[in-house]
Amino acid sequence: MKEIEDRMRELGVVLSEPAKPIAAYLPGIQTNNLLFISGQLPTKDGQLLYTGKLGLDLDIAQGQDAARQCIINCMSILKQHAHNWEQLVQIIKLTGYVQSADDFYEQAQVINGASELLQKVFGEKGRHARAAIGVNALPLNAPCEIEMIALLK
Amino acid sequence: MKEIEDRMRELGVVLSEPAKPIAAYLPGIQTNNLLFISGQLPTKDGQLLYTGKLGLDLDIAQGQDAARQCIINCMSILKQHAHNWEQLVQIIKLTGYVQSADDFYEQAQVINGASELLQKVFGEKGRHARAAIGVNALPLNAPCEIEMIALLK
Amino acid sequence: MKEIEDRMRELGVVLSEPAKPIAAYLPGIQTNNLLFISGQLPTKDGQLLYTGKLGLDLDIAQGQDAARQCIINCMSILKQHAHNWEQLVQIIKLTGYVQSADDFYEQAQVINGASELLQKVFGEKGRHARAAIGVNALPLNAPCEIEMIALLK
Repeated sequence: MKEIEDRMRELGVVLSEPAKPIAAYLPGIQTNNLLFISGQLPTKDGQLLYTGKLGLDLDIAQGQDAARQCIINCMSILKQHAHNWEQLVQIIKLTGYVQSADDFYEQAQVINGASELLQKVFGEKGRHARAAIGVNALPLNAPCEIEMIALLK
Repeated sequence: MKEIEDRMRELGVVLSEPAKPIAAYLPGIQTNNLLFISGQLPTKDGQLLYTGKLGLDLDIAQGQDAARQCIINCMSILKQHAHNWEQLVQIIKLTGYVQSADDFYEQAQVINGASELLQKVFGEKGRHARAAIGVNALPLNAPCEIEMIALLK
Repeated sequence: MKEIEDRMRELGVVLSEPAKPIAAYLPGIQTNNLLFISGQLPTKDGQLLYTGKLGLDLDIAQGQDAARQCIINCMSILKQHAHNWEQLVQIIKLTGYVQSADDFYEQAQVINGASELLQKVFGEKGRHARAAIGVNALPLNAPCEIEMIALLK
């Protein structure tokens, strides 16, 4: 499992204490061996890295960077449930919501910022099913929100 | 299990015969021990309690009241599968969609109307993972729609 | 299982080699006995059958036809995991996203194009829970996107 932490270091991925939910729910919940992780915003140290809509306020590279931070936040929660990664069997599913102008259609590229990081960090275990969706508004004017399902031992 | 019904009564929660789906699908379906409940609108006695968009036609308090009705409808379906609550192990996940003006960003507060009611009624068993999302349009011009996953015995 | 293929033929359903994901993810992934299928667009032979928004560029019948193609693409992926349908126990859940004008509220009717086809092809095994959601933008300007969960043996 050391390997996973090494790859994170190389990729500049810094996990942190999971952010407190901004409302009345849990960051993650495990049932049988499926872990459901709540929708994560691109917050770092309690601040949103970006706000605004793709195709209006932000470009694709900024959106990918925001998606990357969303998935880092998912990984912080995952680590707590997977006990230093030893229990992680597979990332199963992402749903990525991209706050979009009405004529912005590159949601798949934006959410790749998250999908590619997962695969770099976890290798085969990081490959997953996914949906990428555009929406007109997200909590706190965040540019994206990502929720995740993972399989644990 | 009596306790759950008592708390509902105190909170003014009235379950009803689950509404017929407005299209070709089931209200809920159980697999292994996971129950998937279809997206519920804020209908009561066959009528939507509210229509319109948050931040344009409705304020946060109205949205929370609508979210509360969505989750009451989820609970009506849950009860049928959980046999008077005896089979309920845990609420697992909500996805809450809020019909929003383009500059409305308080989706988390709106969906709290549902999350907080679940916790008041079910206590620890009512705590869940969640995603709150803004969207530009929902079926029948409903202000919100909530789907739920629960773990049964 | 021959029966399923017969019904598909009668309904003019032609499955194909699943489309390559347009980004860094898997078409479907199985865990325990749940199969999660990635969000599918209405592509056929590598081309979108329709682009545009419901209530603006497309009418309900066109949206239903697009939803039908999304679910055919889900079925193509399902077939690979269900080994010629022998392993299929039940379709569990659809989430259908409909790219909508701000005042289009017939998402349920649009997604019926998918739900009804599933039931015609698979009978009781095709009945499912579902959420139908409107959104302002989808990848590649697609009119709808559908993701699916199925239970396998």
